Amino acid sequence: MKRAPGTVYLVGAGPGAPDLLTLRAAEVLKRADVVFHDALVHPEVLALAARARKVPVGKRSGRYATAQQFINKRLVDAARAHRVVVRLKGGDPTLFGRAQEEIAALQAARVPYEIVPGVTAAMAAAAEAGLSLTQRGLARSVVFVTPRVGKGEAPSDWARSAAGADTAVIYMGAGEAEAITAALLGAGASPSLPVLVIENASLPQARRVALTLIELPGISAYGFEGPTVIMLGAVFASALAATAESAFPPLYRMA
Amino acid sequence: MKRAPGTVYLVGAGPGAPDLLTLRAAEVLKRADVVFHDALVHPEVLALAARARKVPVGKRSGRYATAQQFINKRLVDAARAHRVVVRLKGGDPTLFGRAQEEIAALQAARVPYEIVPGVTAAMAAAAEAGLSLTQRGLARSVVFVTPRVGKGEAPSDWARSAAGADTAVIYMGAGEAEAITAALLGAGASPSLPVLVIENASLPQARRVALTLIELPGISAYGFEGPTVIMLGAVFASALAATAESAFPPLYRMA
Repeated sequence: MKRAPGTVYLVGAGPGAPDLLTLRAAEVLKRADVVFHDALVHPEVLALAARARKVPVGKRSGRYATAQQFINKRLVDAARAHRVVVRLKGGDPTLFGRAQEEIAALQAARVPYEIVPGVTAAMAAAAEAGLSLTQRGLARSVVFVTPRVGKGEAPSDWARSAAGADTAVIYMGAGEAEAITAALLGAGASPSLPVLVIENASLPQARRVALTLIELPGISAYGFEGPTVIMLGAVFASALAATAESAFPPLYRMA
Repeated sequence: MKRAPGTVYLVGAGPGAPDLLTLRAAEVLKRADVVFHDALVHPEVLALAARARKVPVGKRSGRYATAQQFINKRLVDAARAHRVVVRLKGGDPTLFGRAQEEIAALQAARVPYEIVPGVTAAMAAAAEAGLSLTQRGLARSVVFVTPRVGKGEAPSDWARSAAGADTAVIYMGAGEAEAITAALLGAGASPSLPVLVIENASLPQARRVALTLIELPGISAYGFEGPTVIMLGAVFASALAATAESAFPPLYRMA
């Protein structure tokens, strides 16, 4: 007789720092039989899964579709062999985590699943900068967006969404700052819009650059390769002045 | 001689379930001398602050301004008397948490502060529904917005921001569903736009309702009084069908 499959937990590993994991995520990792994890998950987080086999499934640009189907299949296979299967993703699984493709595969195979939410990079970046993404009288909408398009996917009008909210956080955009700047200006954003770019938020090696939208293409000089968010909006103007006087390290400012 | 002030930690308590707190938040609470907390923080989270004095500072609508100034003053005073002061907020402190007003007061008083990010209600609601807020080819922008206006604050065009993103999550809107519906329709949203309303996401008493935008005013019949998010977008259409077949409890559907 066939036994019932195990459960697949889609778990948010948080923004980077191992102690920004949730208590629930830590507990699920401790019970895990096998963990399929993104490339950038902190080693201390993986170490919590003491008795699990750890399988890196980091994807590389350009080979997304194939890799994703392979991950989907491995999750289903693992659930047929184990009780507790964890799919560990950077940040929160439901935000730019491609979770829906894995969920669809699990549903098609009648594998039960559960999502354990996590702290997303934007929140860690705001915490790192010491400011609030929403502010009374200044910002009551925050949009999270990515200009990254998958293979065979139509370009969307992400720039209009970004320009239409009071605060915008762009994920996975550091490598295409020039195109982003052009698209945002084209969507009506002001050249003097304050921008805060943060790489590796919550980690010791975090770096940040404060500038205006028109200066944004200049960030290519920094060679950001870790997870980076580009944050735009009026809330970053007042915060820059305030932060310089606070206990926080000074922000870099481009010439 | 005056001693240096303590540090104020603006800590996210997460969406409701006590185990959706971060490890860092739990650790800071354990060290806390005094905790100023929102009304809806879970008792098990407060219990982690074993040696702290707990001070509820929940605000009530209509008395925001006065209450906020009072909280600001208490935080500064506490930092002058204690080493570890915690301001514990539901969700994430930087998203609809009015953190900037407290930050400004701390900066003006030269009190060091630190933000500990948290899981926001939208992520918990997506996890509860078992679906992703972003989806390849369907949703690459997610906006978080509130129609709630503070006393003396101008109404903003929140509806345009909400209608301009692929997925929208409305915070603190359950009490004004009729006005929200009218504003979104006025901003160009489709009457048949899929909507998922979730109250008390992540808690045992969570309730959810799936409907279309034109039906949204009907949620007043449910009397939602806990923290509630109204989520709109195409991702909720496919997810509704899928969720009904999954291991998750069926969604309520209004007649």
